[in-house]
Amino acid sequence: VASRLKDWVAIESDSTDPEKRHLVINMMLLAEERIRKLGGTVEMVDLDMQELPNGNKISLPPVILANIVKDPKKPTVCFYGHMDVQPAKIEDGWSTEPYILTEKNGKCASDDKGQVLAVLNAIEALQKHELPVNVKILLEGMEEVGSIGLNTLVKQRNSTFFSDVDYIVVTDSAWLSNKPGITYGTRGICYFFVEIECAKRDLHSGSFGGILHEAMNDLIFLLDTLVDSSGHILIPGIYEAVAPLTEKEKKLYEGIEYDLDQIMAKYGLEEFRNKTKEELLMQRSRYPSLSIHGIEGAFSAPGAKTVIPAKVTGKFSIRLVPNMEPSVVEKQVTDYLNKKFTELNSPNSIKVASDTGSKPWLSDINEPQYLAARKAIKRVFGKEADMIRAGGTIPIATHFQEVTRKSIMLLGIGGPDDASHGQDEKISRYFLLIFLKIINMLI
Amino acid sequence: VASRLKDWVAIESDSTDPEKRHLVINMMLLAEERIRKLGGTVEMVDLDMQELPNGNKISLPPVILANIVKDPKKPTVCFYGHMDVQPAKIEDGWSTEPYILTEKNGKCASDDKGQVLAVLNAIEALQKHELPVNVKILLEGMEEVGSIGLNTLVKQRNSTFFSDVDYIVVTDSAWLSNKPGITYGTRGICYFFVEIECAKRDLHSGSFGGILHEAMNDLIFLLDTLVDSSGHILIPGIYEAVAPLTEKEKKLYEGIEYDLDQIMAKYGLEEFRNKTKEELLMQRSRYPSLSIHGIEGAFSAPGAKTVIPAKVTGKFSIRLVPNMEPSVVEKQVTDYLNKKFTELNSPNSIKVASDTGSKPWLSDINEPQYLAARKAIKRVFGKEADMIRAGGTIPIATHFQEVTRKSIMLLGIGGPDDASHGQDEKISRYFLLIFLKIINMLI
Repeated sequence: VASRLKDWVAIESDSTDPEKRHLVINMMLLAEERIRKLGGTVEMVDLDMQELPNGNKISLPPVILANIVKDPKKPTVCFYGHMDVQPAKIEDGWSTEPYILTEKNGKCASDDKGQVLAVLNAIEALQKHELPVNVKILLEGMEEVGSIGLNTLVKQRNSTFFSDVDYIVVTDSAWLSNKPGITYGTRGICYFFVEIECAKRDLHSGSFGGILHEAMNDLIFLLDTLVDSSGHILIPGIYEAVAPLTEKEKKLYEGIEYDLDQIMAKYGLEEFRNKTKEELLMQRSRYPSLSIHGIEGAFSAPGAKTVIPAKVTGKFSIRLVPNMEPSVVEKQVTDYLNKKFTELNSPNSIKVASDTGSKPWLSDINEPQYLAARKAIKRVFGKEADMIRAGGTIPIATHFQEVTRKSIMLLGIGGPDDASHGQDEKISRYFLLIFLKIINMLI
Repeated sequence: VASRLKDWVAIESDSTDPEKRHLVINMMLLAEERIRKLGGTVEMVDLDMQELPNGNKISLPPVILANIVKDPKKPTVCFYGHMDVQPAKIEDGWSTEPYILTEKNGKCASDDKGQVLAVLNAIEALQKHELPVNVKILLEGMEEVGSIGLNTLVKQRNSTFFSDVDYIVVTDSAWLSNKPGITYGTRGICYFFVEIECAKRDLHSGSFGGILHEAMNDLIFLLDTLVDSSGHILIPGIYEAVAPLTEKEKKLYEGIEYDLDQIMAKYGLEEFRNKTKEELLMQRSRYPSLSIHGIEGAFSAPGAKTVIPAKVTGKFSIRLVPNMEPSVVEKQVTDYLNKKFTELNSPNSIKVASDTGSKPWLSDINEPQYLAARKAIKRVFGKEADMIRAGGTIPIATHFQEVTRKSIMLLGIGGPDDASHGQDEKISRYFLLIFLKIINMLI
């Protein structure tokens, strides 16, 4: 069984690199073969071509839509996962070759091949007696670059493939500690680009320093009006839509295992803004936050360069929580920045743009599949599952919910220190084994 | 004569690229040959090796120290120039191949080969009668990367090569308009690096957004405390040392030809901070300025990335004017940033560093060589020369002054739109011809 994961990890199915697209396709074929061996019927759905930034078009990997459906009376669970990975090189600081599965201390690839294979292995094990549910599987190969083409496909198949699906389980998530957890919500996001232009070409600070309104000054001023030193977002109205905290919800944070000291030590943090675990988890789960990511167009290389950049674009994003609406936040931010900019009396031009926002997602933890998963976890571990709301965004969850209106649950088995997208990404063998039990008790 | 410049321009003597070092050396040999043909004695001085960032060592191009000395009773003028260039490729937007001299509208390489050759051609022409002065020539090949090794050499030869030099003429400067100008001052510079670190590795804004003091927030706050929206530097004490403006100096700015509208149109500027030509020239020449150049360590590529950068370094510089001292400015800035940072109550770490500062340089425009050059320009053009103080830094001028204590003059013939370091750099044929006359009338 471990050799299956080894074979899967060996394929460099990096969806970000067009030159490795054939490897992503190979990976999909390998997954197809595995599902057929489980007796599933597999449809390999071809998507439209992908247009690259240079205008060239290349094939998208097919999406797998599979059925292991036996009994129309049984409920149907659809598992979602992805077969693509982010770029990884040994030079990035991995301690072993990233595409050679290495077993270390009982650990061995979490985002997302390991989790998908765990589901398939669990199905295989359960088939020896009788599969307690009908299973459908949706696997894609473009998740790491925004699930290109998937949204359209989900809409197209909503009344066919999804019609008899009762529950959708997304395998692409992680626990907060070694204690199993179920993710029932994620924050959304609005990503902003604020561009200031002061000249049509870069200028030398010797010749031009002091005599013009430099774009960097205007941009730094604007970026400095976004949050105060306590992290509070200064854009008017931003907190208005935030769902009020109920006592019931508050209680959920108390039971969650989350070791602040361990996280601080791991990432080299001096301190968190929040003094208690509960406050921290709430800030991360159910309150918005604003992060400034960087500036495009300014001098960013090592060394010293005396340039006055002509056009600079500040980039920041706001994490959204229920009941914030991307379109409302976009308007609030744009209006605020434009208003602040007029205060500067600058002759420069400003452009505020945003990526298509992603809504926050929240499920009811008392839906049947949640109750089943919580019961299964309690039976295996003897304790309540952590009910988690992820700070990040899993757009596919939002999309599944909006299009299919089915019950969605994020039942990942990624450990908290699996370092998704990071050096030495791994998956714990221990987690792989227990997943089997959870699936068995799901219904 | 034009074919000489063509041969010189053809050599890609890019000092920034170690793989082209042999071409810089070839360029020095070509200049040596030209000077020997004028009857000069040439010493090719070998410098120490250059250590590259990767630890490898490569040869520095030799420095040319040449003499065309005939009469000990005549004054001795030492011309300084450089034979290296910055990288240039046709892809950068040149309209013709950058290393093929192309004549367009009577124009044809200004920084600095064209100017050096103009001096040598003028000497040749004057030798047909009698050279009115003794001439020494100092040519280097590493100017574009900070004149590596030259400072040491100037110190070593101060009591030998420079002992009988009366006047040093630096050819590496430009006029402000088509009206000839003489540069008698430059601003200095202090370059600062302010580094804030919040974690030992980059973080994901989903998982960490809102729960920590992000390094970018602290840095943006600090960068926003440097200048106000009118360009005034907010660091206490920074204006204290600035030399007061005298009526005599003020008058000099009135006569200078400088077309604000033309510059604005050329660089795509909406407006200058300064309403009049005089105010603008004074701001650029005799008042300090602060420019923010960029941030290292933050997200600077195109697109959207939801990173919380772990360590970011803001880069800015202050242009210094007489009588500001780099060491004083460095202390003022460091103290100010540290004080502002404590106001934030941030748990992050701060490091303020600076490059070795460069002092401002200022000559007396009534020194004999200035009077001679002004007289010559008036005789040829029928009007007073613009007396220019450059906004940028020419460290070699400061260094010559500090070490040799000789009279230094920047008598360049670069036109205002020669676009040094830019696409389609050129030199005007017209300027080449008149330089001959100026030299002839110098003494």
